[in-house]
Amino acid sequence: MHIETDCIGSLPIDDEVLYGINTVRALTNFPISREPADPLLFKSLIMIKKAAATVNQAAGTLPAAKAKAIIAACNELLLGRHSEALVAPAIQGSAGTSVNMNVNEVVAKLAHRLSPATKVHPNDDVNRCQSTNDTYPSAGKMALLQGQQGLLQALDRLSAALHTKAKTYQSTIKVARTQLQDAVPMTYGQSFHAYASMFGRDLTRLRAAAAALSRLNLGGTAVGTGLNATAFYRAHIIEATAKVSGLPLHGAPDLIDATQNADVYVDYSNALKTLAVNLGKFANDLRLLGSGPQAGLNELKLPARQAGSSIMPSKVNPVIPEVVNQVAFEVMGHNVTVTMAAEAGQLELNAFEPIIFRDLLQDQRYMAAALTTLVDHCVSGLTVNEAQATHNVAHSAIAATILSPYLGYQATANLIQQAVSTSQPVQALLHAGHQLPDALIDQLFSPAVLPQFSSQVQR
Amino acid sequence: MHIETDCIGSLPIDDEVLYGINTVRALTNFPISREPADPLLFKSLIMIKKAAATVNQAAGTLPAAKAKAIIAACNELLLGRHSEALVAPAIQGSAGTSVNMNVNEVVAKLAHRLSPATKVHPNDDVNRCQSTNDTYPSAGKMALLQGQQGLLQALDRLSAALHTKAKTYQSTIKVARTQLQDAVPMTYGQSFHAYASMFGRDLTRLRAAAAALSRLNLGGTAVGTGLNATAFYRAHIIEATAKVSGLPLHGAPDLIDATQNADVYVDYSNALKTLAVNLGKFANDLRLLGSGPQAGLNELKLPARQAGSSIMPSKVNPVIPEVVNQVAFEVMGHNVTVTMAAEAGQLELNAFEPIIFRDLLQDQRYMAAALTTLVDHCVSGLTVNEAQATHNVAHSAIAATILSPYLGYQATANLIQQAVSTSQPVQALLHAGHQLPDALIDQLFSPAVLPQFSSQVQR
Amino acid sequence: MHIETDCIGSLPIDDEVLYGINTVRALTNFPISREPADPLLFKSLIMIKKAAATVNQAAGTLPAAKAKAIIAACNELLLGRHSEALVAPAIQGSAGTSVNMNVNEVVAKLAHRLSPATKVHPNDDVNRCQSTNDTYPSAGKMALLQGQQGLLQALDRLSAALHTKAKTYQSTIKVARTQLQDAVPMTYGQSFHAYASMFGRDLTRLRAAAAALSRLNLGGTAVGTGLNATAFYRAHIIEATAKVSGLPLHGAPDLIDATQNADVYVDYSNALKTLAVNLGKFANDLRLLGSGPQAGLNELKLPARQAGSSIMPSKVNPVIPEVVNQVAFEVMGHNVTVTMAAEAGQLELNAFEPIIFRDLLQDQRYMAAALTTLVDHCVSGLTVNEAQATHNVAHSAIAATILSPYLGYQATANLIQQAVSTSQPVQALLHAGHQLPDALIDQLFSPAVLPQFSSQVQR
Amino acid sequence: MHIETDCIGSLPIDDEVLYGINTVRALTNFPISREPADPLLFKSLIMIKKAAATVNQAAGTLPAAKAKAIIAACNELLLGRHSEALVAPAIQGSAGTSVNMNVNEVVAKLAHRLSPATKVHPNDDVNRCQSTNDTYPSAGKMALLQGQQGLLQALDRLSAALHTKAKTYQSTIKVARTQLQDAVPMTYGQSFHAYASMFGRDLTRLRAAAAALSRLNLGGTAVGTGLNATAFYRAHIIEATAKVSGLPLHGAPDLIDATQNADVYVDYSNALKTLAVNLGKFANDLRLLGSGPQAGLNELKLPARQAGSSIMPSKVNPVIPEVVNQVAFEVMGHNVTVTMAAEAGQLELNAFEPIIFRDLLQDQRYMAAALTTLVDHCVSGLTVNEAQATHNVAHSAIAATILSPYLGYQATANLIQQAVSTSQPVQALLHAGHQLPDALIDQLFSPAVLPQFSSQVQR
Repeated sequence: MHIETDCIGSLPIDDEVLYGINTVRALTNFPISREPADPLLFKSLIMIKKAAATVNQAAGTLPAAKAKAIIAACNELLLGRHSEALVAPAIQGSAGTSVNMNVNEVVAKLAHRLSPATKVHPNDDVNRCQSTNDTYPSAGKMALLQGQQGLLQALDRLSAALHTKAKTYQSTIKVARTQLQDAVPMTYGQSFHAYASMFGRDLTRLRAAAAALSRLNLGGTAVGTGLNATAFYRAHIIEATAKVSGLPLHGAPDLIDATQNADVYVDYSNALKTLAVNLGKFANDLRLLGSGPQAGLNELKLPARQAGSSIMPSKVNPVIPEVVNQVAFEVMGHNVTVTMAAEAGQLELNAFEPIIFRDLLQDQRYMAAALTTLVDHCVSGLTVNEAQATHNVAHSAIAATILSPYLGYQATANLIQQAVSTSQPVQALLHAGHQLPDALIDQLFSPAVLPQFSSQVQR
Repeated sequence: MHIETDCIGSLPIDDEVLYGINTVRALTNFPISREPADPLLFKSLIMIKKAAATVNQAAGTLPAAKAKAIIAACNELLLGRHSEALVAPAIQGSAGTSVNMNVNEVVAKLAHRLSPATKVHPNDDVNRCQSTNDTYPSAGKMALLQGQQGLLQALDRLSAALHTKAKTYQSTIKVARTQLQDAVPMTYGQSFHAYASMFGRDLTRLRAAAAALSRLNLGGTAVGTGLNATAFYRAHIIEATAKVSGLPLHGAPDLIDATQNADVYVDYSNALKTLAVNLGKFANDLRLLGSGPQAGLNELKLPARQAGSSIMPSKVNPVIPEVVNQVAFEVMGHNVTVTMAAEAGQLELNAFEPIIFRDLLQDQRYMAAALTTLVDHCVSGLTVNEAQATHNVAHSAIAATILSPYLGYQATANLIQQAVSTSQPVQALLHAGHQLPDALIDQLFSPAVLPQFSSQVQR
Repeated sequence: MHIETDCIGSLPIDDEVLYGINTVRALTNFPISREPADPLLFKSLIMIKKAAATVNQAAGTLPAAKAKAIIAACNELLLGRHSEALVAPAIQGSAGTSVNMNVNEVVAKLAHRLSPATKVHPNDDVNRCQSTNDTYPSAGKMALLQGQQGLLQALDRLSAALHTKAKTYQSTIKVARTQLQDAVPMTYGQSFHAYASMFGRDLTRLRAAAAALSRLNLGGTAVGTGLNATAFYRAHIIEATAKVSGLPLHGAPDLIDATQNADVYVDYSNALKTLAVNLGKFANDLRLLGSGPQAGLNELKLPARQAGSSIMPSKVNPVIPEVVNQVAFEVMGHNVTVTMAAEAGQLELNAFEPIIFRDLLQDQRYMAAALTTLVDHCVSGLTVNEAQATHNVAHSAIAATILSPYLGYQATANLIQQAVSTSQPVQALLHAGHQLPDALIDQLFSPAVLPQFSSQVQR
Repeated sequence: MHIETDCIGSLPIDDEVLYGINTVRALTNFPISREPADPLLFKSLIMIKKAAATVNQAAGTLPAAKAKAIIAACNELLLGRHSEALVAPAIQGSAGTSVNMNVNEVVAKLAHRLSPATKVHPNDDVNRCQSTNDTYPSAGKMALLQGQQGLLQALDRLSAALHTKAKTYQSTIKVARTQLQDAVPMTYGQSFHAYASMFGRDLTRLRAAAAALSRLNLGGTAVGTGLNATAFYRAHIIEATAKVSGLPLHGAPDLIDATQNADVYVDYSNALKTLAVNLGKFANDLRLLGSGPQAGLNELKLPARQAGSSIMPSKVNPVIPEVVNQVAFEVMGHNVTVTMAAEAGQLELNAFEPIIFRDLLQDQRYMAAALTTLVDHCVSGLTVNEAQATHNVAHSAIAATILSPYLGYQATANLIQQAVSTSQPVQALLHAGHQLPDALIDQLFSPAVLPQFSSQVQR
């Protein structure tokens, strides 16, 4: 045990731990959950500390010995060592100061441990030219850029799986349903392609929203004026951080703005939310088309993944889409949380970035996992029940819509109503009534033609 | 034209209009929509003005002539006359001051018009012993209590209609569906009864939430301390307002709290939102069970209300549940609006009550209308397609769950899988396999027994 | 009176009205509010009808006389005539069919009225090659593109007003506040510029989201397969509609997808919501910095717009920011409504587009109005209370942060704490303690230097 | 390793683990997070298993040896042993089946391990007379009832702390602020009391919402019809579960409804959300009144909890209210998640209860922790800066509102405007102008009178 002192007072600190008094206070103050800040957030902060030490050494404002010790400590931590010392809570007050100071303390102590001759101060050395207000949001953005990669990969895989299904079922006819009522025919290939097109927009949106996250306010320090950061530091810190992290980073054009406004997080949350909307719609469709087996639509066969009921033997449920729906609900709820947290920013800072980063990073992980199980355990293995789909088309009177340009809307309506009430196929009624040439009737109702553009229509 | 002056300056005011400078300024400042504050809100404020005049006269702090003139003006307005003068915008800054002053001005001018010998001041006389901060929220609550009546009546009618359907279809067997997969049998009577039970909770919740709205902060004036209100006024204003309005009103136990906190509105919005959730679920079920007619579940026949498509002749869609869903979405969105507005209250007042009252009063109207069209144009006339429902039960292998206590979970699972894969009825397989006495088999699969509690099960 | 018949049955229709049986049924079925669909939505549908008539005539699938009559009727309507006939409710079931049929009916009757020799059928002629499912969402998108213009203009004006303020107050020093606690100095010019930067992102986001709205599914008809639309029509309808409307329209790359998925609306709602977040933050800051006049921060003087209280004489409140906050809350609530409506789309159509369009078009109008009153009645006329702002800087001990690179974090903390507890200026303590050269002390605390980047810092 | 088989197929299972094939499949299917279902949810399920074994033995449908073995296993688990075997993911598809089967499997294997002579089947014995669809929601409700206890205790403590502060500061005068502008005087005692009154309503609401959670659907089995549950079981299971758990449990009046509808969870989430709204408002007020120390309101002194800045020495921030705000945002977001999950229930079941239970149980824990840190680390130790508060009252011209009943609204407005523009105290102007007797002036502006009801006002 030793005593550490800050502007609040003194506390005994365990000699073994790598963190210090700021971190200990945070653990006491924020016992909301046992969840520390996201590993990607800690990692990104450490990258910034390393970059800052490099730049400050080059600027001549940090002695080479200190810089070397700091960089060595950062390298250790970036290898994943001592992660037990990175404990500042994910959900916290302090606008991230606890996380930044946790890193400052751990880097300082570890630097000293690695280079016993060198004394390194958490604030004066590790945090040199920095403030929580520029390092923490920058680290948050860097973490999201890294978390985005797994998400995009999973989304790409879903897209690819859907394109494969679109090809497989390009000629499998189905009854379209609008407002849940039978509509004109189309193919399952078209359906799967439409889902792929939809998710394609999500890829675009996520990339666009992430682009805004690549603009950092490093160098702005406390409120964006850059107070206590040297001109050299401000000129080089972004590039240095980009190099350390391998991320495409840029400076924000207005550092005051970038320090206080949180709309880019809302924007990113929105992109996640819109993906959740699309995933929800897709999962709902899978569950609906897979309903049955006997008293449902029964057109899709989802892979059986587990026994569905503790009481109903052999029941199998669409558990993968169900978990996707729930992740989507969570992400949609988080969008409200992030929105409120962003709106609540006041004056020169948004104090609520911790919950924003926590929710967004969790959303990325959950979504990537949900997408992965969706691809691997549901979409890849699903098949269309072609017999049922074809049967439905054959028994659907509304397919006679195709007659409307020939007979007119009203006469076609009468014909369909007659077909339904007498349980006769429309084609039979048509042939019997001699309303159109037999060959044309057969052509119009040919399965190959039904879902196509009916381009020859004349009157 | 004449000139009116306030603490901002002077403005020319049309001699014809009954309102004054405060109202004119509000119309300029808040051009968000052309929607004036809700008629029930204006009406409730006028009731308060009338009650206040009565009490102030009795207290001796308002001359009888003035009181008489004010009361006469209020009576005119309560008959619905001069409503064109009640124009303060629904969506406004000012925490309701514009609405309160609109009423003060109109009452004062109308009082003077009706009793030309008497001069009535909007603030000193009409608003005597009052502040916007106690009259406006009190009027908002009174408006909601009145708006609640139509909503509860409509909800009661839905409940009654569902109980009727429950009786009609008490013996109509159906396949239950859990997770959209076929489950054990039950009856449509049970289904309709369950919906009625669900909506019964909404009635209870709405009544409970409304009870909190009956506690007014009248007498608290600006911040709840009652400054400038006489002891007599404070002792009598609630009772007098209750008498004028016919509403069950009470004084709030903590006037400071009642002036600044908006949680009772959130609570009421929550009750509306939960009703919206239940209505949404119900509408979804109606649309799903009514899907088809040929490629859907086709178990419910909703009344045909309009041609469903401009292109597909004779298509009919579930338009009534669809509009109910959309009203439910709007109410759920408003719940977020009200939540944010309530959370944003600061210190001694919530400045955002105008949007709260506007959204809640709109929700009540929309919900009452949606419920009414739901009852009249959908639920009352819907029928169960008994043939389809019965057919589905007969073809549902999962009904064999009933065998589980006799054969065990695993053997039953095997039997059901065999039935599905061979397309044979479970009963036939059972009879063939002599696994149970023939009479017991027949009894267990009797339609009359299927949805019942299987109470004689022994091993 | 005359009788009209549809697939549901027959109804007497007033001879005077221009609409027909479909519209009458909608008015009965959807009595939610008295609000008809948005004028821009009707207008856009009429543009589509006109374009379709032109294309169908060119294709030879619509006789010239009919086309001419339809175009003449559309031109009348586009001049704003007969708008009393466009009555289909904004909030409706039917996925927009009621609005589309209202337009089809009105155009058909008006065409016949204008060209009595020509009979025009609402479905077979006016709606030729169309479905509600392609015309209604296309019209909704076109309406939003038009509504966007006023919104962007208003937002541009806010941005310009903020840049003007930034210039006016570029040298006016202030105490920054992070987490509501005094922080290092900056200027009001920087603050106003930061707001302008923030709203600049909103402009970009709104434009990006609108770009997605320019891709229409016209030609896709019922489910995107283009059934009953001729090849010629499909090839020319987008261009023709672009020409009629003057809007930059394109065809959607996947018509099936474009017909059933509503994520582009969520995306646009998100952009509106993020603007609402920024507006809310800005309004909050204005209200906070303008708090007082005696017991608040009192650094901003917002223009006095109206008497603030019915009881407190001469009180003036920040009513313009308050109404902005409330519009922002409404838009944020609508984002949840739109999200839920989009997620609820099923299979080949989203039946809930009516509430989506209604809310988004309302949001655009409300936001544009809120922005306009914000610029004209608040931002343009606001001034900084320079005396108060400067006084605050002079009395803020935390400005001594600038010493940290010279004295170190801990010594600076001690100095600041001493300054606060003894109520002495930091500079005086510094001079007394001879910790730094007098000239440097004076330079560091010069008002001209305080908010600047402190680039010469060395150790 | 041994092989287990279910209706999907066979899997090798580690001999060491207590769970079986159903659990293994769940772990593969739902890799969303590493978070298992809530310990209270597992515990409650185990209580149900124990109660069911007791009842089934009494009914004669479960051999005594099996019942004894099951009860012994449950007792072990209820002591917290083998918790490493309770691993089914919190976020999962399957509507809870994976959690229920995890418990069934663990109880069965542990029973056999404890009583090697007895074979216990997870479905036929442990799950006897049960379905996931009645046990899982019942366990969820029981878990919430248990989680509620800590929450209510923490809320009670906040309420008590506020009452203490109300007493301490009952005579400390302050300027009320409405719409953030100076308003009439009141006391800090009144302010603290108002917060206590507000949180009192939350206690009531949480209790009321929890009452609805005490009604279980145990005995309803798969869809509420009670299929495969004996009459004896249905008659006794609730009472037996109440006895095992010590919770006040009742049977739901409509088991079909109770199985499929999720509004009671929305209702409970709403109560948590409304508490979050109130906590948010309270935290906002604390941060605002504590702003400064020199350029803010500086009326409240919150306990200093940690160094506030890595760059600004000695800065201290309101970190406790800040973390409370963020927990409140999270709970408000979860309310949207729960709302959407509840609305998405279909037909005879809501498949999305897992995310509902996960979010609600997390909300309870987070809120209880946030309340505890708020009481212990902020409210208990906060003090009013009486000098500042009194100074503000003395310098607030709006206090002259008290003159309005004597001088009239307009004359009072003029007087206040004169006081503000000349920077003279209103009292001085009054004395100079001889508008009121000197004694009355002094009496009206006496600090003791200011915040009181001004009951003697006459004209």
